[in-house]
Formats: sequence, C-alpha cells, structure tokens
Amino acid sequence: MLSKVRVKYIQSLGQKKSRNTEEAFIAEGPKIVDEFLTDLSVNIKHIYALKKWIDHNKSKISKIEVTEIEETDLERISQLKTPNEVLAVVSKFETIESPDLKNRITLALDTIQDPGNMGTIIRIADWFGIKNIICTPDSADIYNSKVVQATMGSLARVNIIYAELENWLKENKGIKIYAAALSGKPLNSMDKITEGILIIGNESKGIHENILTLAHEKISILRIGKAESLNAAVSAGIILSHLIKG
Amino acid sequence: MLSKVRVKYIQSLGQKKSRNTEEAFIAEGPKIVDEFLTDLSVNIKHIYALKKWIDHNKSKISKIEVTEIEETDLERISQLKTPNEVLAVVSKFETIESPDLKNRITLALDTIQDPGNMGTIIRIADWFGIKNIICTPDSADIYNSKVVQATMGSLARVNIIYAELENWLKENKGIKIYAAALSGKPLNSMDKITEGILIIGNESKGIHENILTLAHEKISILRIGKAESLNAAVSAGIILSHLIKG
Repeated sequence: MLSKVRVKYIQSLGQKKSRNTEEAFIAEGPKIVDEFLTDLSVNIKHIYALKKWIDHNKSKISKIEVTEIEETDLERISQLKTPNEVLAVVSKFETIESPDLKNRITLALDTIQDPGNMGTIIRIADWFGIKNIICTPDSADIYNSKVVQATMGSLARVNIIYAELENWLKENKGIKIYAAALSGKPLNSMDKITEGILIIGNESKGIHENILTLAHEKISILRIGKAESLNAAVSAGIILSHLIKG
Repeated sequence: MLSKVRVKYIQSLGQKKSRNTEEAFIAEGPKIVDEFLTDLSVNIKHIYALKKWIDHNKSKISKIEVTEIEETDLERISQLKTPNEVLAVVSKFETIESPDLKNRITLALDTIQDPGNMGTIIRIADWFGIKNIICTPDSADIYNSKVVQATMGSLARVNIIYAELENWLKENKGIKIYAAALSGKPLNSMDKITEGILIIGNESKGIHENILTLAHEKISILRIGKAESLNAAVSAGIILSHLIKG
C-alpha cells in the first residue's frame, strides 16, 4: 500500500502549480518510461510499478528508486483512463533559454492550447530533427500529462522555451520568419530551407496580428475541398515535410 | 425542462448500438451545427438550444423542430466537457457503398481506433477534396461524438464506408494501392498522382501484413530526428499534401 502522503504528492503533480514548485512531472506507461530510462539526460526520481513491469526491467532500474505497487494503487495515482503498469515521477528538463538558431529550423507556437496538439507537435518536431520550440506563455503546459503521453517520449529531445513571442521574434533578428496562414505563398512553390522560424497559430484563432506582421513570408497549404481549416499539428507536419531539406 | 424520456433518448445516442438502431447521432456547438444547417444533404431531426442561440439563428431553423432549453438541461444531454449552446440530433448520412474510384484518391484506414485521429483524418480528407474513405470494421465509429467534434463539419462531405479491407482491396483491382510505411519509397521522390488508394495503418501496430502485401508501393516520410513514429493523422496529411496534384 502506498502512504496517503505519497498518493497526495503524486496526485498533486496533475496541477501545473505543483509541477512548477516541485520541478517534476509524471510519465506513464512502458513505452514512455522505457524511452526515458534509456535517455541519459532524463532524471527519473521515482518509479511506481506493478511486479510484472519490475521483473521485466530489472537490469535497467538498478540506480532508481522503485516502489512495487498493486493495480489498485496504480489506479489511485494514475492520470490515465486505463493505467498502464508503470508511473514515473520525472525531474523537469533543463531549458536552454537562448539556443543557437543558425542553420536550423525552429518552431514558434502562438497559443496552442489543446494538450494533444501540443504533444503531437513536439513529436513531429522530434521526427524532423527540430531542436527548439518557442511557445507563448498561454500555450498548453508541456508537462501536462496529456502532452507528455502524446509526445511518446520525444519530450526529452526537444528544447522548449516559453516566451512572449513578439519580443522574442524581435530579439532574434537575422533569422527568416515564416508563418502558416490560410492565404499565403503556396507550399508547393516553396524552396527547401535549412534555416528559419516557422510560426503555427492557435487552433481556432490562428496567429495574433502583432505576431503575424513580423513574418517575412506567409505559407499556405493547398486546399482542394471544403474543410475550413486543418488541425494545427497536421499543418505543422505538412509544412515541415515540404520545407525541410532531407 | 426536458422530459426524462427525451433526456434518456439523447443520452442513449452516446452508445454505438443506439446510434445504429436509431440511425441518428449527436452534433454539438454552433460551429458544427451551423455547417450542418447550411448543408442541404444533412437531415437535422431535432435541435436543443439555449435562447441566445435560437435568437441568433431564427432565419435558418424555420423548418426544423427546435426545443429551447436551459443551461442545466444542456449539461444533462451534452457529451462535451463544456456544453456549447446547441445540440442537434442528426440522421446518419447515406453511404454510397460502391463509389467510383477512378480519377480520384481514396483513403483506406486500417484500424484507426482513436476517435480524435479518425475525426482529424476526415477533416484532412475534406481539405484535400477526397470523396471516399474505407475503414476496417474495428476502426472508430464516425458517429462517436469525439469523432463528430474533431471533423469540424467535414463529416457530411466525405463518403465513409466500413468494410473488410483485404477483400475490398481485392475487389477494386485496377486502382493502384499505396501504403504509408516506416520504410518505403521516400515521399520526396514520388510524382504527384491523380488516382490511387492510400492505406494508413493503426496508431501503434501499423498496417496488417495481409493488407500491406496488397500495396503496389510503400511510401515513407523522411525522418531526420529520433521520434519512433508520427501520429496517424499527421502522416495522412503529410503524404496527401505531397501526392495530390494541385
């Protein structure tokens, strides 16, 4: 049985405020925990797992504090609808606040609020080798468990900075800024690029006017049918796949 | 106040079995209901809405049965976390079981189980002018409310057929079959196409072997970073955006 204090502590990490104070978050399920175990940059503070998971991962967890728990305990601390064998309390990642943006593509997210979209975009960034993502402060918290689950382990490999986008873009002069927009230069006619900042806008409101005006080039995805818009993560994936030099 | 019987009926449409018996489903929120109102092919059976929504849409709803309800009633019948002004009970769409696949691109979904992914894929299909989607019977139900919400109104514009994919593909000889796979011909080297069936596989297991073997060409999206996979809907969007002739 887990102590009440322990259960309360883990449950509290469901709140952004507690995650900030404790500088920790929760990752669940064999897939993500396994990715984090094999990534030397990730600091797992504590693992709570069923016996079968522990037996299966003995060789990898010798240096980590592990508590064997029952299914009923896992249900109490899990944030998933279907708890999945293992829950890890993980230290938040260190952020490089002023990364080098030369010779690479950077994503800038203007108020991506859906945790699933945020997680999916981080996974897309990792797929395309993007090192840095800038998010407006009102974007979804990357340590929200829905974001963590949607990243599928990519979270540890992308440097994510929260910053006021308008100022941040103004401070990063010299890097060309592209914006995903409903009307703009057709994606199909764009040349591949090796450097730039790509702005993706909010799910329903798009990119704020004061930010859009800073873009050097607006890019649009060819629409043939009638859908009013595309999902923000899907747009990010489509644009990156066309722009990035293989 | 809504009668108990009415509340029960609407709530029952949260279940696939009842949706099948009643041949009806639920759509919620001004955006989707508005799209359905302006689409002549959609048969809205009943609208339950707050006064403010009704006042705002008077001119469009003269021929529809409308019940004015209070916020508390809407909370009881809504399937959303945040109920949104209006709920419509809508007749299921008619399906064209043997559509013409010549000179067009068709999507085939092998066990897409996440309702959000299913809805997003339908929205992508509508964006790119795709008329038909074939889904395996164990794919998410397109009338599930999470699917309906994620389609953002595109549901009425795409013909969606549930069928055993292996047999269906064998019956549609003469149309070239493409499959999204982790290894295959790089997407960047593909020519644009005007006809074909594109298979997208399950979120974690990909495409079943018996179906994959029927593909004439496997297509892969260039991976530069380390993410193990891409979200199924994102993959569909990326591949379609490269293949479809503008």
